[in-house]
Amino acid sequence: MDIKEQLRQHFLQIVSLTDEEFEYVWTHFTFKKYRKRQFLIQEGDTVKYHYWVAKGLIKSSYTDESGKEHILQFAMEDWWISDYQALYNHSPASLTVDCIEDSEVLALSDEDRQKLTREIHAFSNFFLQKKNGGYVGLQQRILLLLFKNPRERYERLQQLQPRLLQRVPKVLLASYLGVSRESLSRLYQGEL
Amino acid sequence: MDIKEQLRQHFLQIVSLTDEEFEYVWTHFTFKKYRKRQFLIQEGDTVKYHYWVAKGLIKSSYTDESGKEHILQFAMEDWWISDYQALYNHSPASLTVDCIEDSEVLALSDEDRQKLTREIHAFSNFFLQKKNGGYVGLQQRILLLLFKNPRERYERLQQLQPRLLQRVPKVLLASYLGVSRESLSRLYQGEL
Repeated sequence: MDIKEQLRQHFLQIVSLTDEEFEYVWTHFTFKKYRKRQFLIQEGDTVKYHYWVAKGLIKSSYTDESGKEHILQFAMEDWWISDYQALYNHSPASLTVDCIEDSEVLALSDEDRQKLTREIHAFSNFFLQKKNGGYVGLQQRILLLLFKNPRERYERLQQLQPRLLQRVPKVLLASYLGVSRESLSRLYQGEL
Repeated sequence: MDIKEQLRQHFLQIVSLTDEEFEYVWTHFTFKKYRKRQFLIQEGDTVKYHYWVAKGLIKSSYTDESGKEHILQFAMEDWWISDYQALYNHSPASLTVDCIEDSEVLALSDEDRQKLTREIHAFSNFFLQKKNGGYVGLQQRILLLLFKNPRERYERLQQLQPRLLQRVPKVLLASYLGVSRESLSRLYQGEL
């Protein structure tokens, strides 16, 4: 399946876009290829794009004053990622977005996203439904962090995102879960 | 200002709705009054409504197996609250939503929200923009929880939500921040 068809299917899973509408929407996307460890967004950048992952695995993270990286979000095929605070509020990026694997993405500027939202009702509904889903996902992530116990956090993630668990390097998973690497290793070995 | 005008202003801050459109949207809202400590949603409930807070202070929380309450979200005037996972996925409520103060709300069923989203483009855009803002808010909340240090969490909340900090009882604030009551007291007294 080529990337254009992959994007079309992604839309059609959620809303009905006519062929004509999709062709028009499609003209607003830009294809970009990134290598593993390459940045999409660096702290302080002006952020212009929503990124839809066609292939690969990307993360967004916050680096605190001591230099420690806290992982906010992962994104694999068919997920969207950006520094949304910077994007919507036109503030400098506080997050870093970079690739865990070689990745292929389609970038849509927020300007174009707004334009398409005004012009095409089905597109507006698509974005609303994606945001509703993303909102629920973030709430689940918050509950995960509110659990004090590493085992509970790990089991909850296993329930919610089994595919992610297999694919993300353990050191990043430990950061995402807010648990130590040692705790995570013991969880994998069934010792905790 | 009466509650209808308050809601109209809330919409107009974000999108242009004609008088006729607003009058139509308005017919889908139901006014409800709740006393302090009263439930809007209890764990296991079927969830049908989005709640817009006209007056008061409401919280959503998750109670773990040991009976400990973890606070997910607060909502005061002009904020929206619900158990969105239950609402969108038609699953039983996993959260509790109840009042910290006597509250007045307008309830909108998700069925009607979907209908209005299809019928009125400006309404769809309103909800999308609210969700974008809410999404960013949840990301900030996640970063707050990723900070290990109680002082950093407290200061971040002070930056983001100074009004909330003054209004929410300290015991609930401690739960929201995921810090102990003792730590929070010491923060208030400037000892930490």
